[in-house]
Amino acid sequence: MFDAYVQTNRDRFLDELMAFCRIPSVTSEGDDGREATQWVQRRLEAIGGEVELIALDGAPPVVYAEVGPPGAERTLLIYNHYDVQPPDPLELWETPPFEPQVRAGHLYARGVADNKANVVSRIQAVEAWQATRGELPVRIKWIVEGEEEMGSPHLALLAERHGHRFADAHGCLWESGYKDADGRYLLYCGLKGIAYFELRARGAQSDLHSSMGTLVPNPAWRLVWALNTLKAPDETILVEGLMDHVRPPDPDELEYVRQLPFDAAALRERYGVAAFVGNVEDAEALVRHLYAPTCTICGIHSGYGGPGSKTVLPSEAVAKVDFRLVPDLTPELVHEVLRAHLDKHGFEDIEVIPMDGVRPARSPITSPVAQAAAAAARQVSGLEPVIYPNMAASGPMYTLCDAFGIPAVGFGVGWTGSNVHAPNENVRLEDYFDGIRLMAAFIEHFGRTAAAA
Amino acid sequence: MFDAYVQTNRDRFLDELMAFCRIPSVTSEGDDGREATQWVQRRLEAIGGEVELIALDGAPPVVYAEVGPPGAERTLLIYNHYDVQPPDPLELWETPPFEPQVRAGHLYARGVADNKANVVSRIQAVEAWQATRGELPVRIKWIVEGEEEMGSPHLALLAERHGHRFADAHGCLWESGYKDADGRYLLYCGLKGIAYFELRARGAQSDLHSSMGTLVPNPAWRLVWALNTLKAPDETILVEGLMDHVRPPDPDELEYVRQLPFDAAALRERYGVAAFVGNVEDAEALVRHLYAPTCTICGIHSGYGGPGSKTVLPSEAVAKVDFRLVPDLTPELVHEVLRAHLDKHGFEDIEVIPMDGVRPARSPITSPVAQAAAAAARQVSGLEPVIYPNMAASGPMYTLCDAFGIPAVGFGVGWTGSNVHAPNENVRLEDYFDGIRLMAAFIEHFGRTAAAA
Repeated sequence: MFDAYVQTNRDRFLDELMAFCRIPSVTSEGDDGREATQWVQRRLEAIGGEVELIALDGAPPVVYAEVGPPGAERTLLIYNHYDVQPPDPLELWETPPFEPQVRAGHLYARGVADNKANVVSRIQAVEAWQATRGELPVRIKWIVEGEEEMGSPHLALLAERHGHRFADAHGCLWESGYKDADGRYLLYCGLKGIAYFELRARGAQSDLHSSMGTLVPNPAWRLVWALNTLKAPDETILVEGLMDHVRPPDPDELEYVRQLPFDAAALRERYGVAAFVGNVEDAEALVRHLYAPTCTICGIHSGYGGPGSKTVLPSEAVAKVDFRLVPDLTPELVHEVLRAHLDKHGFEDIEVIPMDGVRPARSPITSPVAQAAAAAARQVSGLEPVIYPNMAASGPMYTLCDAFGIPAVGFGVGWTGSNVHAPNENVRLEDYFDGIRLMAAFIEHFGRTAAAA
Repeated sequence: MFDAYVQTNRDRFLDELMAFCRIPSVTSEGDDGREATQWVQRRLEAIGGEVELIALDGAPPVVYAEVGPPGAERTLLIYNHYDVQPPDPLELWETPPFEPQVRAGHLYARGVADNKANVVSRIQAVEAWQATRGELPVRIKWIVEGEEEMGSPHLALLAERHGHRFADAHGCLWESGYKDADGRYLLYCGLKGIAYFELRARGAQSDLHSSMGTLVPNPAWRLVWALNTLKAPDETILVEGLMDHVRPPDPDELEYVRQLPFDAAALRERYGVAAFVGNVEDAEALVRHLYAPTCTICGIHSGYGGPGSKTVLPSEAVAKVDFRLVPDLTPELVHEVLRAHLDKHGFEDIEVIPMDGVRPARSPITSPVAQAAAAAARQVSGLEPVIYPNMAASGPMYTLCDAFGIPAVGFGVGWTGSNVHAPNENVRLEDYFDGIRLMAAFIEHFGRTAAAA
């Protein structure tokens, strides 16, 4: 009956997803989140949710909702976000990022995989459950925030002020997830943290003729020299003291991870790169991907970048650098060692502006919520899912889960070609509708953990 | 009479300059040079010039003109250009770059100092001479090209095909020049060469989520690491073999240069920098400025550069790098040692695209044409001019002068605050009208060198 309901409502469900994707909720570039939160509020109210929009210090509001019987023995926290990454470079999109289009069984739109399709498919799963099976077996407490792509700067405040409302949750379902190339669901119970910085160098008060390069300090060079001290060409992070805070992986967990399927060659082919850094392959690549902190230039800009040549000595240079964090690194710690490192190497002139920061998060792959997700994935796909201790990506899981002792698991409707944070972001339609069934199976299995407890 | 003529025609002369500055002749960004060359042609024909537009391989045409009596004992070659630098960053201009405006005695426009005001003031000087003194005492052969800001890629071909037409010149007047902070004319008898390159690094076939920084090579890092091998933070050029080709300055010339006035503190204040590279001051700064080759990042661009944070792993990184050349460096030599250096240091993956290239040029400060310019400067300003053996800037002087044994000198109507190649480029109106008188005095003194010879 559940499946038939989904089938019957297939066109409407897809229309709803496309409507949500049409909202250009790039809050990092000034969208106020109003249209997206109203859309989510209406949709959650339609499944009986008690919805509240929580505005913290003028930030784009957080949607907080509760749905399902208050007396349920199990409470599920769900974390999602309605904001999306900026869509540039626009010229590389085959169709405009906020005009969702179905082509060859895929839906293309900015933010569809990360993570609007998860928001909508989870709501539709609850609707279909209620329509075909009646009352939910769990109480759901739902947080849909609007600043995830900026590093969730107000979520700590939300946890501080409103944490008592969801602190009783027995498990948390995280925002998104993907299938691997063989169609297996990839689950994860942790995330890397992130520390994002802008590094700025300044030279003369305005751009000069480049013949003045004999005498006038060049901020582009200063930035290149400073960056060069942060990471060696062999990818060793050189920021002094940083690696001292990286906790070695648990040997048993490492052994488990080495057995997980990971096809490095397929991934290299997808990305069009001849070799991974350090020529790592398969198990070694996966271990590096999950356990290594990173130091990545996300952007560097200075001086002339147009066609032809312009002989200019730039007056300013800016780099955007992110560090992905593993336990026990924190954004505050990275800021501290980065500043000290630059000072020690003679780069007191390089300004370091901390932007996003979230801590790394981990919960056991054996937790009831993770095992419920695994059982659901097994049931819907017919394949054994892959459970990762953590993903290489980041999110505010520490703030909402670790800090309250709530174990977490993530899954979603993306695939390996979803182009997250890149042009032509997409989900496959069949994954999308599978995702609705997956959510229902997860609710069922998670509800049963009460009896087992 | 000459001065009265200039005074009477002051408004028209300024209108003519503004009309020329209104033409957006940025040939490096696709302007075909048609409007600017027609303007120059009409203006040169009005002073009796025999004008020809020479189109070489589809490049923006070169204006070639001869004016003055064919039987004159002295022939003067003049080199100018009608193209201008791209005007960006546009937002830093107080008024639009191609809408010339007079404010507080300055005329602001892209290209006015480099070098449209010189083109127009020299033509107007000839007009005023003819109107008030009759026939010119010299034959002038005038080259006004349209690709100077791109490194004059077709000028070698012009010299090869048409050099016989101007090879008999006894001296050459170069395109532009400036007064120093004390109002002294700065003359120069040589230029640095230039070798401009685009360096490109490539990574994955499209931008990726920055969490992939664990595995996927980052072209922004590759470029930073490669650039870091080219120049040390103490400004030593590290490109192997490059400095071996730098000819030590002649000791007498060096002694002469050390005596030249050069106020480093005033220059630092103008540019808003606390210290010059290597903390050089005064004589040491001037020697470095004139004799040191440079390696300058004119631009570097990769990944995200907008507001806020975007966690992207870029797929491409590009730097624009110029080397200013002193004898005996050549663009071909620099390309060769740069490629070999990158290969040797493990950066075979960095693509090096040569763009502009011109050789350094030098002629004696004692040449008749230089001495005629000095006499004219003395006469018009009442101050002893400063004669530099060469400027730190570049131009195709080797191609047009050194290659034919023609000594050269440069002067012009700019000042130290002309903002050449930068926003709010300008000349002072009084310098402009002085420049017309300076040109007439120079013609007179240069004509007299026949008697002395």
